[in-house]
Amino acid sequence: MLHFESDYAKGACKEVLEAIVKTNDEYLDSYGFDKYTMSAKEKILKKCNIKNGDVYLISAGTQTNAVSIDYLLKTYEGVISTDCGHIATHEAGAIEYTGHKVITIKNKEGKLVPNDLRKYLLDFYNDKSNYHYVKPGTVYLTHPTEYGTLYTKEEIKEIYDICSNYDIPIFLDGARLGYALACEENDLSLEDIAKYCSCFYIGGAKVGALFGEAVVFTKKEEKYFRQFIKGHGALLAKSRLLGISFDTLFTDDLYMKISTQAIEMAKILREGLISKGYNFAFQSPTNQLFPIVKDEKLKEISKYVKYTYWEKYDKEHSVIRLVTSWYTKQQDVEKLLTFF
Amino acid sequence: MLHFESDYAKGACKEVLEAIVKTNDEYLDSYGFDKYTMSAKEKILKKCNIKNGDVYLISAGTQTNAVSIDYLLKTYEGVISTDCGHIATHEAGAIEYTGHKVITIKNKEGKLVPNDLRKYLLDFYNDKSNYHYVKPGTVYLTHPTEYGTLYTKEEIKEIYDICSNYDIPIFLDGARLGYALACEENDLSLEDIAKYCSCFYIGGAKVGALFGEAVVFTKKEEKYFRQFIKGHGALLAKSRLLGISFDTLFTDDLYMKISTQAIEMAKILREGLISKGYNFAFQSPTNQLFPIVKDEKLKEISKYVKYTYWEKYDKEHSVIRLVTSWYTKQQDVEKLLTFF
Amino acid sequence: MLHFESDYAKGACKEVLEAIVKTNDEYLDSYGFDKYTMSAKEKILKKCNIKNGDVYLISAGTQTNAVSIDYLLKTYEGVISTDCGHIATHEAGAIEYTGHKVITIKNKEGKLVPNDLRKYLLDFYNDKSNYHYVKPGTVYLTHPTEYGTLYTKEEIKEIYDICSNYDIPIFLDGARLGYALACEENDLSLEDIAKYCSCFYIGGAKVGALFGEAVVFTKKEEKYFRQFIKGHGALLAKSRLLGISFDTLFTDDLYMKISTQAIEMAKILREGLISKGYNFAFQSPTNQLFPIVKDEKLKEISKYVKYTYWEKYDKEHSVIRLVTSWYTKQQDVEKLLTFF
Amino acid sequence: MLHFESDYAKGACKEVLEAIVKTNDEYLDSYGFDKYTMSAKEKILKKCNIKNGDVYLISAGTQTNAVSIDYLLKTYEGVISTDCGHIATHEAGAIEYTGHKVITIKNKEGKLVPNDLRKYLLDFYNDKSNYHYVKPGTVYLTHPTEYGTLYTKEEIKEIYDICSNYDIPIFLDGARLGYALACEENDLSLEDIAKYCSCFYIGGAKVGALFGEAVVFTKKEEKYFRQFIKGHGALLAKSRLLGISFDTLFTDDLYMKISTQAIEMAKILREGLISKGYNFAFQSPTNQLFPIVKDEKLKEISKYVKYTYWEKYDKEHSVIRLVTSWYTKQQDVEKLLTFF
Repeated sequence: MLHFESDYAKGACKEVLEAIVKTNDEYLDSYGFDKYTMSAKEKILKKCNIKNGDVYLISAGTQTNAVSIDYLLKTYEGVISTDCGHIATHEAGAIEYTGHKVITIKNKEGKLVPNDLRKYLLDFYNDKSNYHYVKPGTVYLTHPTEYGTLYTKEEIKEIYDICSNYDIPIFLDGARLGYALACEENDLSLEDIAKYCSCFYIGGAKVGALFGEAVVFTKKEEKYFRQFIKGHGALLAKSRLLGISFDTLFTDDLYMKISTQAIEMAKILREGLISKGYNFAFQSPTNQLFPIVKDEKLKEISKYVKYTYWEKYDKEHSVIRLVTSWYTKQQDVEKLLTFF
Repeated sequence: MLHFESDYAKGACKEVLEAIVKTNDEYLDSYGFDKYTMSAKEKILKKCNIKNGDVYLISAGTQTNAVSIDYLLKTYEGVISTDCGHIATHEAGAIEYTGHKVITIKNKEGKLVPNDLRKYLLDFYNDKSNYHYVKPGTVYLTHPTEYGTLYTKEEIKEIYDICSNYDIPIFLDGARLGYALACEENDLSLEDIAKYCSCFYIGGAKVGALFGEAVVFTKKEEKYFRQFIKGHGALLAKSRLLGISFDTLFTDDLYMKISTQAIEMAKILREGLISKGYNFAFQSPTNQLFPIVKDEKLKEISKYVKYTYWEKYDKEHSVIRLVTSWYTKQQDVEKLLTFF
Repeated sequence: MLHFESDYAKGACKEVLEAIVKTNDEYLDSYGFDKYTMSAKEKILKKCNIKNGDVYLISAGTQTNAVSIDYLLKTYEGVISTDCGHIATHEAGAIEYTGHKVITIKNKEGKLVPNDLRKYLLDFYNDKSNYHYVKPGTVYLTHPTEYGTLYTKEEIKEIYDICSNYDIPIFLDGARLGYALACEENDLSLEDIAKYCSCFYIGGAKVGALFGEAVVFTKKEEKYFRQFIKGHGALLAKSRLLGISFDTLFTDDLYMKISTQAIEMAKILREGLISKGYNFAFQSPTNQLFPIVKDEKLKEISKYVKYTYWEKYDKEHSVIRLVTSWYTKQQDVEKLLTFF
Repeated sequence: MLHFESDYAKGACKEVLEAIVKTNDEYLDSYGFDKYTMSAKEKILKKCNIKNGDVYLISAGTQTNAVSIDYLLKTYEGVISTDCGHIATHEAGAIEYTGHKVITIKNKEGKLVPNDLRKYLLDFYNDKSNYHYVKPGTVYLTHPTEYGTLYTKEEIKEIYDICSNYDIPIFLDGARLGYALACEENDLSLEDIAKYCSCFYIGGAKVGALFGEAVVFTKKEEKYFRQFIKGHGALLAKSRLLGISFDTLFTDDLYMKISTQAIEMAKILREGLISKGYNFAFQSPTNQLFPIVKDEKLKEISKYVKYTYWEKYDKEHSVIRLVTSWYTKQQDVEKLLTFF
């Protein structure tokens, strides 16, 4: 069976696993005070060129979104997201569980269109009876998006400018951030993200870590965020596991190296599919590809390949999702292409 | 430096670590559907002699308490705990964050006294205006308790009988359950716990797992608990890490073997301290010991030993906590005793 | 100035006000145990032909929706509503504040289309990975809808049949229920509503009460709903005010009498507007009318009439909302028509 | 039957009721924008000598506490209260429902002892691992307390000074504030309260209003508090009812006049009981008295008098609560005394 259904079907990348093993016998502090977590924080802040910010490591992506967004919002505020945003669709109501509404705006190729955001905010602030509505308190972006697409630096800047008018911070979900940064089509650096976002997370679970995500605050947050995490049940006693993962990933540029591998594999796959005449539902330059496949063909493919069924395209076609990752091998991509 | 400050200062026990490494390259399903999680569930249910129950693996202890207790409670109910219960004191309000009050009853040596519980419930149900109070919806017990003490089977049965009158389920926090089960003073088996509790968790983070806890439902719960976990941000995509930990711990009785090691070390330590004339703040037969130490002496000890400062005892003495664990070596205990 | 902007711009209807005054000096029990609340409950249950149900009186509409829906839902469930549902748009996130997602389905003339609901539920239950989504736990309907339109008995029955397949209760928001019941176009009686809905509320604030809404449970609910209300901060000590309002409204059919008055006035207004050539954005037979008015004309009208601006219709027209109520007088309707 | 069981067993005081009737036919704005609410705000701010603050009117006391305290707290903070504080005991978990812990400190005669508060805060801030605990975010006081006792100005100032060290705002629950202000033993004016508290509420339901409480912010709060109230389901459409109540109560010093009446009656009652040899469980100078009564005697009294049973005092005695109010008549007090 060939595995292209997700980017988290294997364990950790080699270097992370080795570090986990090597340090297993060390006595380490807990709750984020172990030396590896400390070191990972320093390396990440440096990489983002953040002078006076903060980094916290959290076990899972949905948890990271819920905790961070709840932290950014006041009790009576909601978070703006595209209608295909992960928090709006695939997190089983984790944001609402924290008491906040997800305010959705129609996406375009997975992205929030600056003008749509502008209009939404104008309408809200112009309405004298807006106390009947949820006040927008933060904007949620994903990079890459759920459809594998990328924001341009210009788009992010425009969203930032709009938000600044209303003092609205931006939160960026980077569950697959490495795979965006490794794309040649991407013009948005970690430094740019740190400049325009108040808070964002660098995905680990899908990019070679044993597990976990790194939340970055681009300005110094008050010192009680650890308490906040704890109160949400999200503070891991054995923080070493997260610390070692990210410390290793941010040593010798490992995070980018393994991300690049996934992107190269995606490129071969994409070009192979194009040369075989396939079209795509979304124009994704990242590690998720969405080819449109004849249903008849798909039946055959399913015998040999694990993929994600996305949606019906038309009477005779479906969209599927193929995902490459840091552990995808060229020979597997080549074999995969023979089935298409 | 000698480390007796906690039972989670090292990584995973040897066998778990080996299994993590060995399976790293396998493609596995996620969100609890990987084969190791499946296998762990079967083994745990069998060990508890539960015919038709369920097991879920969750990343952290506070999270496990918050998710499980929120699941057991109706929106308007609260959870009864001793005033020294972990949820009442050390979880940064994680239960309250889920909307529920922790109703506290004074502890006796760390334990909930059946008669105190009986009186509380009688008073509540006899009060015609009890709609002003929080309805008690579940009872939270820890075994061993925060003070290392143990409930007897008779005590648990009595609490169970009281609760049954009012249809109140019992939840047992077994963060250190292995260390209770390994005690010769303990007469409460996993089967007993499964019989008297509606839900309980078997601690992994402090007993040799890489991390994580196993929540056991002793009756078949409705199938949406996974959704419930997800909505609380507590569903780990890479569930393999938890699955492998518990599958290994519940193979060849490993969980009991490593727990026994900790208890043997605690016994040597306790007897050593007694023979040196030390008294204890609580009579703990488990892996946490609470000797009363002269402050002057303590200053000296602090140079060589990491321990937990518990509280001031009197003008010249303090209570400290010394913790043994699956990784404690006899030579370290013996060395430790030389400082006392 | 003519007032057609809402149906809650005056105090209570004459009979209710008199009863408030008359009973002011009586010593009465509180928290729902006063004799007027008791009597109101009996009368409402009888009117709905409910043998074994329950009625609670709550101060405000948004509160009533939030408390009742939170009660019907399990923690991890959400409520299905049209995208124009009051809870989805105009309640400042009160449902989300209770931790639940509002799952929206596109409305048609303000109504939930049974087939759309059927498709949504089928998709959810057919998806094996549906633990990533919020489980639908109740369906929210309004009658009349936000656009003044009415469900037919057949439509409600169809929705009920769909919901029954999945054990999903229906909640009906009857903030303006009187104005639906008083319509000749309406074929849905209080008895029908009681038959198809698990819970619904009979609006008071907009239909002659001093304030407050009556929540009806069509089956016996457990006895802790009072506690539930209290825990949501929604239990009024001086319940007499709500009790007297509803006891009076459900004596001698007063609720229907005053509702009929509003509907008659709406009919005159609607026919007057039609005869002047006006079209309507929604075909509302109830007390809210949505004429499409030339912007130029509207400027003139605004000098003499208070109405609700609804939305821009096209370059030169707008939709406004005109509301009649139990206190609308025919002479005012006639005068209003002269401005159009 | 003589009624001394509560201070909310009758409707509104004469002047308020008349105003409700008189204005019933006026068309008024809603959601707090009606002219009576506006006027009430101005009068209250002036009375408190607050230059730049805000006043909101809310329907019920528990709701007022929950909404205001939730507003003052950050998500991860808790509220400090005495162990007999209304929010800690009699509000069915309404604070916890908003996600916050009520941190209790032992009361002394119903009051929070400044030194106990100081010690609690010192301990919290000195603990380096305090991220395991709930951060104290506001202090909740009641004046008069649940036992009818009063804080001195000096005590409040001391609490204020302690809190100021840690930037902790004080919230004061004045459900019976009028009855404190009317006491000659009281040295804490409305101006003092406004000076030391960030937020407090002036009780209406128990002091002559039809219903409702007035929340006072002593500094200008951000303009979204209305949205906050709405999102908690606590914004009343027909705000006129609250506005008229408070506008009337704060005209011609009515609030103090009717409060004084209750205090005079309490004084006669207290002196009468003392002269008959009764002792009191708490030394309350306000409108709640807590005599210790022989159980045998109480059986007799119960035939003629409605009171609140408080608690068992000893084998042969009980504590009861007798409450006077704005509607208590001297002849009733005199008659009451004949039964003792």
